[in-house]
Amino acid sequence: MADYRELWSKLGIDLEKHDKLCAVLPELYGGTYLTQKNRPEGMNYFNFVVAEVHGLRIKELDEHKKSGGKVVGTFCVFVPDEVIFAAGAIGVGLCAGSQFWVEDGEKVLPRNMCPLIKAFMGAKVGGTCPYFQSCDMVIGETTCDGKKKAWEVLDDYVPVYVMELPQMKREKNYAQWIEEIKEFISKMEELTGNKVTVDTLREGIRIANLKRKALKRLYDLRKYKPSPISGLDVLLISQIAFYDDPKRFVEKLNELCDELDERVKNGVDEGKKRLMITGTPMALPNWKLHSIIEGLNAQVVVEETCTGTRYFENEVDEKGETIDDLIKNIADRYMKINCACFTPNTGRIDDIIKYTDEYNVDGVIDFNLSFCHTYAVEHKAVEESLKEKNIPVMQIETDYSTEDSGQIKTRVEAFLEML
Amino acid sequence: MADYRELWSKLGIDLEKHDKLCAVLPELYGGTYLTQKNRPEGMNYFNFVVAEVHGLRIKELDEHKKSGGKVVGTFCVFVPDEVIFAAGAIGVGLCAGSQFWVEDGEKVLPRNMCPLIKAFMGAKVGGTCPYFQSCDMVIGETTCDGKKKAWEVLDDYVPVYVMELPQMKREKNYAQWIEEIKEFISKMEELTGNKVTVDTLREGIRIANLKRKALKRLYDLRKYKPSPISGLDVLLISQIAFYDDPKRFVEKLNELCDELDERVKNGVDEGKKRLMITGTPMALPNWKLHSIIEGLNAQVVVEETCTGTRYFENEVDEKGETIDDLIKNIADRYMKINCACFTPNTGRIDDIIKYTDEYNVDGVIDFNLSFCHTYAVEHKAVEESLKEKNIPVMQIETDYSTEDSGQIKTRVEAFLEML
Ligand code: SF4
Ligand code: SF4
Repeated sequence: MADYRELWSKLGIDLEKHDKLCAVLPELYGGTYLTQKNRPEGMNYFNFVVAEVHGLRIKELDEHKKSGGKVVGTFCVFVPDEVIFAAGAIGVGLCAGSQFWVEDGEKVLPRNMCPLIKAFMGAKVGGTCPYFQSCDMVIGETTCDGKKKAWEVLDDYVPVYVMELPQMKREKNYAQWIEEIKEFISKMEELTGNKVTVDTLREGIRIANLKRKALKRLYDLRKYKPSPISGLDVLLISQIAFYDDPKRFVEKLNELCDELDERVKNGVDEGKKRLMITGTPMALPNWKLHSIIEGLNAQVVVEETCTGTRYFENEVDEKGETIDDLIKNIADRYMKINCACFTPNTGRIDDIIKYTDEYNVDGVIDFNLSFCHTYAVEHKAVEESLKEKNIPVMQIETDYSTEDSGQIKTRVEAFLEML
Repeated sequence: MADYRELWSKLGIDLEKHDKLCAVLPELYGGTYLTQKNRPEGMNYFNFVVAEVHGLRIKELDEHKKSGGKVVGTFCVFVPDEVIFAAGAIGVGLCAGSQFWVEDGEKVLPRNMCPLIKAFMGAKVGGTCPYFQSCDMVIGETTCDGKKKAWEVLDDYVPVYVMELPQMKREKNYAQWIEEIKEFISKMEELTGNKVTVDTLREGIRIANLKRKALKRLYDLRKYKPSPISGLDVLLISQIAFYDDPKRFVEKLNELCDELDERVKNGVDEGKKRLMITGTPMALPNWKLHSIIEGLNAQVVVEETCTGTRYFENEVDEKGETIDDLIKNIADRYMKINCACFTPNTGRIDDIIKYTDEYNVDGVIDFNLSFCHTYAVEHKAVEESLKEKNIPVMQIETDYSTEDSGQIKTRVEAFLEML
């Protein structure tokens, strides 16, 4: 990737530190992904994307910027992609999943914080993420305390615009969220110089829905027994969905799904236990839990997380005459996301129960990034509702370090034996 | 206090467990408070309140309830007392400050959580707090993730009504907060059967303002060098303010202030270092940090906390023709509270800087209850702004256990030497 050094340099990347990051990733990826047996051919595209993670896509962002386009970073599935597309900007989901960035993050944030937040902050503070460096603006939101307050610190390094997500889902909260989306549209218009119209917004909705449909198609295929694709591969695809070119991503993912359609016809059940993961997001390259699980006699068949179903479930209605109609459609769809940042959030329990049936799940792992209060408190309700349905559940609270991997493996093994 | 057992029993108190709690408090209080030299006479009333903490006041609540009155519990300075008074209810601030309750709290909440939240939950789950047991309803708010989600669990034990506090302070957030106060009024009317009128609301405002004025008077007296009262005593008074009868409290506090007015005339400066504490609340009986500081050659002269200035600063304007006018006045006052739950929250930094001058502060201790993200993230800004003014600052993150007391003492000692 030597030919990208000039580009990285231009982006203000700390090249020396970045080299270290680049040295880690291929080994981790090779060990985790390329050792999988009998992978679908269609995964080659995603291998390529990972190999070029700091290369080709960064070059595309650079070209977009050279022709006057803007790049905005997001950290949450509540920031509406539709608006970013409609304004002609490129959105990149920056959720950071590597321990590599945590140390730099801890220079400006408390240690007792979710590793995802420390990682994205560290990526910016240390100047080692070319995506972050490409961003003209970051769009924050008030989902959890950690992120809400981290924006104030991040704003010293890159302009941050914060959307206020309501904390409840009463009638008036829908109206408030509509207002937030409108203000976000104005902000994006101001940033890009492009007016968001009924037509561009409808097109933005269409593209976002195409992504959702493709991901839904992939997830639906996992409902087969056996699933024609590993949980690891699906996790990677979901992670890539956050920053790849949307149209190319949809095309390649649908090609993969065509292949998987064939696979399910000849699937031979090896009796692997089927697990659901629910809880907090797994940002690239956080493959820790999936890798442990699928190294044992089990398969992850569904993730009820922000890097899973919460990202693609429910489409935005494309019908509507006016821009206000479309904004309302967008608001309605996003308010259906059952995130633990809302109180109450009983819809999440309903989703989990529904998925246990739909995906034929043998057991559930409630995954909690350390110090994420909202999901941690919900564990009790998750556990109780699954117990009622006689579905075993275990909680794993962890961060990005590998220190506890052995211990987690032992616990997962014991759990699988129980199923 | 044997004559209260029947009452406690009626309230569903776990008497055996409660006996253990009652055994701890007098010793702790005696050791921390009664050993202070040269205390003002006026502290006798507050000694009495502590001695009767689970007695006399609980009996008053019981009598109020017997005559058809309602009792509501609150956990946050954002829940407007004015409305509770206007509806003829009694409000009790339940913020729980004892390690005693933490164990029971951890049965239903994650360990990685602020001790205040675990303690109030434990007090309810274990049935050991007669105030909690007296509550017909608890009023929650969406200030921090921990509390926001804890309400869902608490609601299994006692009816909880949640006010949504905005996360920002833009124009529209004021309007949202006004709406929340209106809904809170309806809820209180429904609970008590009493209509809130212009007159009762104005009277509620008047009473709340009297409390604020009295506390402000007390704090103003601390600006003298030396302060005529210990930080420990002021902390206790602030804690008692949350549950004592408001009118009696104001009367007794003003009597104490009359005495302190005399004291300042004859004050002899012993050269004690003057410290500000800023950060998270200290609920009864959390006297840990004050007790360490004032056991050394230093005095706490101001607390920029929810159990300090954030509780009483700024009065509600009593002028207004209509109920809407008064509600707006209430909203305006509460939105002036500079809590870390807002983003941004630069007003808090301004307050801290202002107080360092007003109270003639030698150094600042930024006090953080473990796992409180919002205040922990703000530490960086607090530190930077104080450094600019050449005022030394140290951060102490701790919970209710006494395990780290020795270590904190050593750190505070080193800090004081530096001043
Ligand atoms: S995992 Fe939890 S604490 Fe971390 S960013 Fe997500 S919601 Fe916030
Ligand atoms: S100390 Fe912090 S975490 Fe605890 S209740 Fe207060 S704001 Fe919430």
